[in-house]
This record gives sequence, structure tokens and C-alpha cells, in this order.
Amino acid sequence: MTPTITAFERSPDRGRGQSRDMRVRWALEEVGQPYDVRLVSFAAMKQPAHLALQPFGQIPTYEEDGLVLFETGAIVLHIAERHAGLLPDDANARARAISWMFCAVNTIEGPILELQTAKFAEANESWTEQRLPMVKNRIRHRLGQLSTCIGDAEWLDGAFSAGDLMMVTVLRRLTISGLLDEYPNLAAYVARGEARPAFQRAFDAQFAVFEASEEK
Amino acid sequence: MTPTITAFERSPDRGRGQSRDMRVRWALEEVGQPYDVRLVSFAAMKQPAHLALQPFGQIPTYEEDGLVLFETGAIVLHIAERHAGLLPDDANARARAISWMFCAVNTIEGPILELQTAKFAEANESWTEQRLPMVKNRIRHRLGQLSTCIGDAEWLDGAFSAGDLMMVTVLRRLTISGLLDEYPNLAAYVARGEARPAFQRAFDAQFAVFEASEEK
Repeated sequence: MTPTITAFERSPDRGRGQSRDMRVRWALEEVGQPYDVRLVSFAAMKQPAHLALQPFGQIPTYEEDGLVLFETGAIVLHIAERHAGLLPDDANARARAISWMFCAVNTIEGPILELQTAKFAEANESWTEQRLPMVKNRIRHRLGQLSTCIGDAEWLDGAFSAGDLMMVTVLRRLTISGLLDEYPNLAAYVARGEARPAFQRAFDAQFAVFEASEEK
Repeated sequence: MTPTITAFERSPDRGRGQSRDMRVRWALEEVGQPYDVRLVSFAAMKQPAHLALQPFGQIPTYEEDGLVLFETGAIVLHIAERHAGLLPDDANARARAISWMFCAVNTIEGPILELQTAKFAEANESWTEQRLPMVKNRIRHRLGQLSTCIGDAEWLDGAFSAGDLMMVTVLRRLTISGLLDEYPNLAAYVARGEARPAFQRAFDAQFAVFEASEEK
């Protein structure tokens, strides 16, 4: 049965592919699994029908044969466990790849979300201009550690895995801030992810949604 | 082979069991797996020997037979996959439990860590007193959604799982703030977790480390 995911009817990132549905689209493209998309408006995301699938009123969700999942890490792991191509066969390497998935959504995405909150939810507060450099420095601290860890390796741990997929999509949230460019090996790492044919197919699919919404 | 985890030599929470090693201790106690603990000082956490295990200079780590893991979500999942007691047998229920693990460390822990950052890293900033209510309201928003979702159920989805273990330990970071008490069903949920014999054994073990460090 073809899985159905949800995505923004009108993406707030204007087609840059920074919404979290990209992670699931990319994973499904990597493993060659077709999928359907149900677009959801901001109003519908807060309604009972969507909240029954996603208690926090967000996208994406994943529905397949009576199974309903949310949280991109869990959805990508579910896909990676059922199809070859996103997790190594070796048990220890597989466990390490899953470490990087959790690292992406906790250790790295945490401070990045703080920046987004400062820029949007606290945009008009008196302290924001003065506070932003501190928020950015906390991101730099993490990026520096990640940069040291990757060094000149192609991927986080051997071959491309679901850990890289999650990390690249989390780091892509920083593209507008310019912070990524301060760490050339991280910028190159993200570029390698974006150059993968599966990423490009996923990107094009979400961009088509954005273009269609602009025409309305 | 008995796994070895790392924990704070001197816990900054003074024995309250809010450090992340609690998650791993609790998981190992739930499945009845003995473990060794290597205590690490704050200075040693930033040294190359520890950074080789944990690139971000944090605890806990997990070492077992040549495997090194970090990120509590990944460590708990690794334990849950190898021993009975933390994940349901049914494949769909198992995937949903993993959703809750990711939800705990991303959707719920994200805003909670923002509060900790505001209280500690930004304690002396001119804006902090005025800003704290906004930070707390963002936590309330998530707690309200989680409270609705749990309702009067005992656990998040059927029997106790690794999803509950992660969620309870994340919510316990809020005990001092008083925020949890605003949602009686969440406070009761956390209390149910704390009442489990495996939780109590894990708590006592970390508390013994705190007491020993006080005597030095």
C-alpha cells in the first residue's frame, strides 16, 4: 500500500525545502518508494482531524496500512528499517547511524530552533537585536564540534545513511542565516546531500507544491 | 559483556536525577541488565578521550563490545531492541513507541531546554526577567497538547514503553519550575513513571554518586 504523508498547502519557506516533509520525501526517494501527499492548510492543522494524527498540529504525518506516525526521526527510521539503502547492515554501524539521527533532532536542531523562535516569535521584542548574537554563538558552538567530528569525511560514519539525511536537512535550516558558510566542511557536506538524485527529486516535488500555491 | 555508561562525577542537579544518565540507567534496570558506570569530571568531558566517545562533550555515553553510542534516545532504543520489556511486539505499536521517543527529545525537550538556557546561560541578562514568561508559555503550549493527548490514559500508547521512559525523564526536567503541576494528568503520569521499581533503582544509584561526591 502506498503511504500518504502530509505537507504544508502553502509552505512558509517559499519553496526552499526547509519544511520537515522534505526529510520524509527524501527518505522515500532514497529507497525508491512511491508516496501520496495530502496538503494541509494552517487552519486545518489545528483541527481535530489532523490533531488525531499529529497531537501537536504539525506536519508531516505518515499513514500506511492503518499505521499513523509523526516525528520525522521516527518516520525516517520506519522507512529505513523496511527498505534497503538508509541503514548499514552491520549492527553496530546501524546503531551509530541511529545515534546521528537523534543527534540531528536534539543536539543540533535544538539551538537552531531557538534562532527561529528569536527571529519570528520574538521578532518585535526590545531584546531581540541584542540577544541574537548569543543565540547564534550557541549554534556556532555546536557547529564547531560537528565540524571537528566530520573533518574531511564524506558522511558522518562511513556510507550515506539516515543519520546524514536527518543531519543535512536540519543543517539546511541555517542556509539563510549564513552560519553554515563559516564551516566550509559542513557547507560542503550539506551540498553533497543536496546533490543526491533522491534529494533533488524530493526537492522538486515540494517545489511544485509551492509553485502551484503561488498560482492560486 | 557488561556495558559501561558515563555519568557526571558531580551532578549539577544535586542528586535529583535530572541528568541524562538517568534515562540509560532506568532503561537498563527495566530490562534487568547490569552495567558499569565511569564518572567523568566537567574538565575531563572536554578532553580528547571523552570527545572521541561523545563529540559534543556531554554525558552519557554507552560502550559495549567495541560499540560506542551517544544520544540517550539512540542508547535507550539500542537497549530496547536487544532486551524484552521496553518495546511492544506488534510492529505498528513498536513504530508508534519510537515516535514518542523522538517526540520527547525534539518536540517536548526543545522548549524545556530553552527555559534552562534562559535561566542559566542568560541569567544575568537585562531581558531575562521580562522574557521568561514567553519561554514558559511556549512550554505550556506543548504541555497542553500533550495533556490532551494523554487524557486519563496510564501511558502514552498502551503498555509502558521506551517512549514513556523518554517522555517521563524529559518532563522531570520541569519539576522545579512548577509548570508540570499546572497539568495534573501529566504530573500523575510522571509520578507513575517514578513509582516503577526500575526507576527507583536507577534513581538510588545516581543519588549514591551524588552523596559520595558530597563527602569528598
